[in-house]
Amino acid sequence: MIYVNSTLREPLYMQIYQCIKEEILDGERNAKDKLPPIRELASSLNVSKNTVEAAYHQLFVEGYVKGKRGSGFVVEDVQNFLLSYRKINEVEIRNSKKRYGEFLEGETSSEAIQYDFQYGNISSEFFPCDYWRKATEYILSSFETSALSTYIDKMGDLKFREVLSRYLYEARGISCHAGQIIISSGFQHAMNIICDILPETHRRVGMEEPGFYSARDMFFYKHFEIEPLRVFPDDRYIFDLENADVSCLYVTPSHQFPMGRVMPIEIRYKLLKWAVENDGYLIEDDYDSTLRYNSRPIPALFSLDESERVLYVGTFSKSLSPALRVNYLVLPESFVRKYQELPQYSHSTVSWLDQKILAKFIEDGRYHKHLRKISTQYSMRNLQLRQMIDKTFGNSVKIHGFDAGLHIVLEVNSEIDVDKFVALARKKKAAVYTVERCFLDKEKAPKNLLLLGFGRIDEKGIKRGVEVLKLAMEQCLE
Amino acid sequence: MIYVNSTLREPLYMQIYQCIKEEILDGERNAKDKLPPIRELASSLNVSKNTVEAAYHQLFVEGYVKGKRGSGFVVEDVQNFLLSYRKINEVEIRNSKKRYGEFLEGETSSEAIQYDFQYGNISSEFFPCDYWRKATEYILSSFETSALSTYIDKMGDLKFREVLSRYLYEARGISCHAGQIIISSGFQHAMNIICDILPETHRRVGMEEPGFYSARDMFFYKHFEIEPLRVFPDDRYIFDLENADVSCLYVTPSHQFPMGRVMPIEIRYKLLKWAVENDGYLIEDDYDSTLRYNSRPIPALFSLDESERVLYVGTFSKSLSPALRVNYLVLPESFVRKYQELPQYSHSTVSWLDQKILAKFIEDGRYHKHLRKISTQYSMRNLQLRQMIDKTFGNSVKIHGFDAGLHIVLEVNSEIDVDKFVALARKKKAAVYTVERCFLDKEKAPKNLLLLGFGRIDEKGIKRGVEVLKLAMEQCLE
Repeated sequence: MIYVNSTLREPLYMQIYQCIKEEILDGERNAKDKLPPIRELASSLNVSKNTVEAAYHQLFVEGYVKGKRGSGFVVEDVQNFLLSYRKINEVEIRNSKKRYGEFLEGETSSEAIQYDFQYGNISSEFFPCDYWRKATEYILSSFETSALSTYIDKMGDLKFREVLSRYLYEARGISCHAGQIIISSGFQHAMNIICDILPETHRRVGMEEPGFYSARDMFFYKHFEIEPLRVFPDDRYIFDLENADVSCLYVTPSHQFPMGRVMPIEIRYKLLKWAVENDGYLIEDDYDSTLRYNSRPIPALFSLDESERVLYVGTFSKSLSPALRVNYLVLPESFVRKYQELPQYSHSTVSWLDQKILAKFIEDGRYHKHLRKISTQYSMRNLQLRQMIDKTFGNSVKIHGFDAGLHIVLEVNSEIDVDKFVALARKKKAAVYTVERCFLDKEKAPKNLLLLGFGRIDEKGIKRGVEVLKLAMEQCLE
Repeated sequence: MIYVNSTLREPLYMQIYQCIKEEILDGERNAKDKLPPIRELASSLNVSKNTVEAAYHQLFVEGYVKGKRGSGFVVEDVQNFLLSYRKINEVEIRNSKKRYGEFLEGETSSEAIQYDFQYGNISSEFFPCDYWRKATEYILSSFETSALSTYIDKMGDLKFREVLSRYLYEARGISCHAGQIIISSGFQHAMNIICDILPETHRRVGMEEPGFYSARDMFFYKHFEIEPLRVFPDDRYIFDLENADVSCLYVTPSHQFPMGRVMPIEIRYKLLKWAVENDGYLIEDDYDSTLRYNSRPIPALFSLDESERVLYVGTFSKSLSPALRVNYLVLPESFVRKYQELPQYSHSTVSWLDQKILAKFIEDGRYHKHLRKISTQYSMRNLQLRQMIDKTFGNSVKIHGFDAGLHIVLEVNSEIDVDKFVALARKKKAAVYTVERCFLDKEKAPKNLLLLGFGRIDEKGIKRGVEVLKLAMEQCLE
């Protein structure tokens, strides 16, 4: 029976549509049954003819009835199709439905960590919220908003890239033009592009061992073969490279991840020479070079390249926010041409507004100031961490890579069970991390290395955190 | 000779560093040469000891010199490495360097099109700039900004997904929870995920013929085999499917792209039945379903699925802005689990701020209002376009798919050379497009179909544009 209730919020025509649809699906109206004439139904429900017509039209558009206004509508054999689908469906056992709660579990950590030496996150208090608000205001009030009507060029916003190319020259010694820069939405996106533009013949990559796990994940995903090249405890790098069967090399020259070493100019030139001699390519991940504490930022490997052998990845994740999802590639022109041709990348994946704001931020000289500010802030934490470790652990540990970035590696001189130590620290609400993840060959990962980030923990937290680590260490050595 | 100029903006220590670095690279200072003692150089340049120390330290960090403060610095054999690299380098002929201008060429169209019936772009004037500004202000002033310190969960912002799940229930009949939604940055990103979570056994996909070219590009990229299933001129779809050797199917049920047909309920149930019987999966691209002009939006295929066979893709590109780069997937839970495990997706690629703003926009009920507003606006254009075509071309053309979305397909009844027509129209500053791109088998693409978008052309433009098309048509048929 068709009925309507005018006190409901749902429009009357939708109520009629719903009613008839359910009757058809439930088999109360069978195939070839005629729907009541529009005038008749309108009169019996005390609604307008238009209301009934709208309901019938919707049923018609969705295929529940056929026919035409005027000559009457006839029910389609929908119930049959539904039953036929459901019958099959019963065969499939679907009692494994997980509850919503289970799905959310992985998304929130329930552990109450008080002193988190996590690596990767940073302090949100330095984010230029005020500037961002004003720049949003400015840009959304400008005539430029017509760009909101279109997809963004696959290279990224041109203005942003032009500003970025000038910044890269000043800050990283990189001489490039906007046409060599691709704006990407995070490290994995950038690596995806790199893997796609490298020639098919270049699918064997050498990686620093230990090295950046996310890069390794991406190479695996793109079916590259990975050869580890030792950078710790000694720098077997170059010797290994001579004998390695690799055609590209993923490196972190400004601040080796995780060990923190700056690649000396000698090795830089050797790598470039290797690339030319072996038709090889160097992928330079310059992830935190803007943060150097006891010297100027080191010019990028890209800036030394005279033979179009270096593919450069830069990011705003460490300097502004990892939640922004903006980074970039700087490529030799031949690789840009390759990228232009790839149909799987048809538009930029980064919001136009974010690109505009970042362009303005850099152009206004505010990014430069911001970098100075955060360098000062993080250098104080870095100093605090070093001093606290020196004071608390003395000669029983060695600190690696304290000159830059947002993490250090702690080498414990005595033999400890690092997993046990991490667990003990965690019980005391301090989180530190092993470097095992950074090793391709996990078996060979030294058991006495710890990764300590200071991106998100303030000086007070560092002080107390290290004290807690000391207690955990004592307990561990008992 | 080392010299400094105190009138330059560059810090003195950087000038000293640059000077010595160049001398080392030029061979004026050789390997094993000692650098002048700090005190001596400081005195001769009339700068402080600290200044010289800073310069030496930078050279040391970068590997140009070795040694220690106190015992003196010695030049490394850098020049040798540079020359050795350069020598090799000369072998490579690098005279093919393109100029910057050439690279930018592809990025700007020089054609002065006045009436552009382009498909894909939309009108920026409907974008809620005011709301966006205020929401940015609101969110960046809130305590929530602590999220700026971290990477975003690979599923996307939880709040946004919760709001979206409620919206999808109201607007698309989709019953899902936040744990089934993944926020992605554009169609290609979403398709990349889909291709990666489909089982290895499901690499043969059936596509509507004609169909959406970007989807085809992505399937090719991910090494899927594609089988075209005819949807025009007749709906051979289902019959073809029974004999097709495919394990998944990419479909546009709400508004077939490009032909514009709504998939009848009968075929929807048949597809679902096919999926269950054949262990198949259906990829539902719901790209413009929110824009329907003569009926309510059609419930999504996903909403009928009782057997976890449909993977749904939705977007904000048509309803808000393609420059936003935000869309989303709704997945059966088994696929979410697969996605969670994939290391190549470790973080959301969409800016945290955009996700927060969109969540607020939907939650405040503004998105609903916005959709009503743009539906009214675009429906007027749609009507104008249909009426103008009826009036101008009469029975010589047939319009397909005028009930929804931002485009129609024009079928010309007489035999015309569609490429010639497009070229003639372009000369008159009107751009229309062939549908050839939508066909996998380009040979079989009908020569009398034209794709006309009305996303970015206003009513006035439509009126004049159609008049221009009429002139071009007459010329074409001469």
